[in-house]
Amino acid sequence: MNTAIHGMIEELKERIDADRISTNETVIEQHSKDESYHTPSNPDVVVFPKTTKEVSEIMKIANQYEVPVVPFGLGSSLEGHVIPYDHGISMDFSLMKQIVEIREKDFLVTVQPGITREELNAELKKYGLFFPVDPGANATIGGMAATNASGTMSVKYGIMRDNVRDMEVVLADGSIIHTGSLAAKSSSGLHLNGLFIGSEGTLGCFTEITLRVYGIPEHITAARACFETIDDAVEAVVAILQAGIPIARIELVDEPSIEQVNKHSKTNYPVKPTLFLEFHGNEQGLKQDVSFMREIVQDFQCSEIHFETETAERNKLWDARHNLAYAYIHGHPGRKLMVTDVCLPITELAGAIRHAREALTRLDLPGGIVGHVGDGNYHVLLMIKPDDPVEMEKTNQLNEEIVQYALKRGGTCTGEHGVGIGKQKYQKQEHGDALQVMEKIKQVLDPKNILNPNKLVSGTLQDL
Amino acid sequence: MNTAIHGMIEELKERIDADRISTNETVIEQHSKDESYHTPSNPDVVVFPKTTKEVSEIMKIANQYEVPVVPFGLGSSLEGHVIPYDHGISMDFSLMKQIVEIREKDFLVTVQPGITREELNAELKKYGLFFPVDPGANATIGGMAATNASGTMSVKYGIMRDNVRDMEVVLADGSIIHTGSLAAKSSSGLHLNGLFIGSEGTLGCFTEITLRVYGIPEHITAARACFETIDDAVEAVVAILQAGIPIARIELVDEPSIEQVNKHSKTNYPVKPTLFLEFHGNEQGLKQDVSFMREIVQDFQCSEIHFETETAERNKLWDARHNLAYAYIHGHPGRKLMVTDVCLPITELAGAIRHAREALTRLDLPGGIVGHVGDGNYHVLLMIKPDDPVEMEKTNQLNEEIVQYALKRGGTCTGEHGVGIGKQKYQKQEHGDALQVMEKIKQVLDPKNILNPNKLVSGTLQDL
Repeated sequence: MNTAIHGMIEELKERIDADRISTNETVIEQHSKDESYHTPSNPDVVVFPKTTKEVSEIMKIANQYEVPVVPFGLGSSLEGHVIPYDHGISMDFSLMKQIVEIREKDFLVTVQPGITREELNAELKKYGLFFPVDPGANATIGGMAATNASGTMSVKYGIMRDNVRDMEVVLADGSIIHTGSLAAKSSSGLHLNGLFIGSEGTLGCFTEITLRVYGIPEHITAARACFETIDDAVEAVVAILQAGIPIARIELVDEPSIEQVNKHSKTNYPVKPTLFLEFHGNEQGLKQDVSFMREIVQDFQCSEIHFETETAERNKLWDARHNLAYAYIHGHPGRKLMVTDVCLPITELAGAIRHAREALTRLDLPGGIVGHVGDGNYHVLLMIKPDDPVEMEKTNQLNEEIVQYALKRGGTCTGEHGVGIGKQKYQKQEHGDALQVMEKIKQVLDPKNILNPNKLVSGTLQDL
Repeated sequence: MNTAIHGMIEELKERIDADRISTNETVIEQHSKDESYHTPSNPDVVVFPKTTKEVSEIMKIANQYEVPVVPFGLGSSLEGHVIPYDHGISMDFSLMKQIVEIREKDFLVTVQPGITREELNAELKKYGLFFPVDPGANATIGGMAATNASGTMSVKYGIMRDNVRDMEVVLADGSIIHTGSLAAKSSSGLHLNGLFIGSEGTLGCFTEITLRVYGIPEHITAARACFETIDDAVEAVVAILQAGIPIARIELVDEPSIEQVNKHSKTNYPVKPTLFLEFHGNEQGLKQDVSFMREIVQDFQCSEIHFETETAERNKLWDARHNLAYAYIHGHPGRKLMVTDVCLPITELAGAIRHAREALTRLDLPGGIVGHVGDGNYHVLLMIKPDDPVEMEKTNQLNEEIVQYALKRGGTCTGEHGVGIGKQKYQKQEHGDALQVMEKIKQVLDPKNILNPNKLVSGTLQDL
């Protein structure tokens, strides 16, 4: 630890209770990593603010000492977002997890960033409401806003960027702004809300987030549809979307992933390429949608379709889907999770998944394919040994091929996990000269490059 | 015209056909105004580019001569957005109105900015598709993206920002970027798409826009519901939204506005506070939604409900609604249109409209109230004489009171028309220190302040 850090910690102690400023080895180690295969790196100090004012004080001191600050939620990121490669402060939001206000009749809730999506939904349920963005992890709302997370229901309810109406943000110099308002729409000012969502801690620390929430649907029907080939399953998805059936969830789980699900969640699902589906609506409309969907899947050799109308069975199905990454992790002790995350226009999806399958076979990698296929987003899950150079080379080769396939067809290198450090090498290719615009914005809002430096975009302008 | 302008025009002529560079008095006058009450101001020259490359050449030359450039669609803006108060170039996009690509099965269409929404929809209809954002004017898609426009269907389909997936943009220095991709969602890079939408020509000129489009709904039912008081009508809207009925349109039209509609559109609607509604969906679901809505409006003394299931009658109803502003304009020759545009959380809407009504009565101003009430957005339409100082003072007083009421309750000064020059005075109050962030972004992306200067945000940093 250098002298600047030491001086800064002393100054922090004048503003924040000493027991919320930690250099304890275990605490440091907990903040050195995320859930990905990326190499850990220690922060110098972990600080646990309790209020927006404290976050602002910490940023002012960090700015004065030019010490990096990495906001930290639960560490469930998948591309190294929260790993402090430049050391400095890991700002842990676990003590800021209040629900600030529920405006039930406006379908709005304001929370602090440290609350998790499951904690929030437990509270919202009392009001007949729910928040639909549901990434695999029980992530914090702050982390989900920082990566522009999405999930199984985004095909109907949208992604974080669609559901965050306002944020209170502490900037690099400690000043505090709001990025939106409580209005459902606005053409006032430049749209900072969308810019800060998905900024991965590089533009500011979120201290309050106002979310749009929804009434729990009157009727819900979930289904599991099994197919003979993954191609048939994906083509069925495309047909359902093109028929305009307003589906709430449509998830692909391939055979290796069904095997992991069965082992981990004690289910007994047929080991076949499977779609997990859900419909939300009124009773009559839902019946008509479901019967139309039934007709369509028959055209694609659907061998079995099983409906779950009971809440308990439905929850079991979706828990199994959500726990899939953990099923892989627990099924492969000593290995680390690596997940691809491209998203393409829907007509390119079947080809992309076929291509990924072929690449897995060719490279002899044991991976599962799952995805939010209604959005054109799919993942290959691999359990790897990061210290095995041959395996790492094959894994990187796979990721490279998958990303190149997507970028050539108008897609993106990351549909929902974000850039972190894992997707930085594709930023120039994906965004072209727009990357320079992003870098200029980063530079003007964080001139000392202290906010999660060298993640997402570089803080120093590249010659493009 | 000063020497710099003269030199610049000569240089423009080396790149652009001379007949597409105009200083003709009529052409200049056409580009000096919009549809609002704001004072006209002439550009020095109007240029009609045909390609992105030409737009880039024009920007490079303008940048070199430090001459302002105002992008111009059809001039249907309502807050002076396209009026070139600093003179220079009015860049008219009427020759760039091609449909570049229709990706029917991806529900995507790429257009040049000069195409109007009606022209686009006429073409999309051949594919069973439609684009749902429908401001009152038959505006250009470029203009709609520049103001983040919305309309009667935004309660279901979202606003421009929700429906633009990618844009090709020419920046101040002539460089060309893309702001998004064809993927339905992305967590790659900073989100420039949302930032440029609604930027009112201050950050760049849009040269191609990729839109999300929708399948024409299987079944559509429209309705007109009359109420005894405007309060009852608004409370019915709030109840319908809170019941979670997935409504596609829900528009309020007050008595004076119904009178204008009847005169202009040769309709014979009862002169009562009225809701225009529409439902999109499958047959069974729609029946259930409509019957639930019927029950709800009965609770609010709905005196008459009339359904329009025939396409022709339905179109007549919505044409009448869309032509409302023109009905006012044609009904008041010699006067100019002034429209308020606040948007509030839905629970504040009834109070806001009551307050606006009281202010109209107190100030003795003859205004109509209409609105996209499902979004919490409403307008007061006034036909004014801008050169009558007493009337202008009362009008400004009304606008001020309406905006203050909204801002105090978490709303915005403009739900869909944008800032232009008319709402600049509220930017500091609405956005606080966030305005400085907007100004920094403007400054770093347009350092010479040539892109629609002194609109929306100032190009020079304010001391806040």
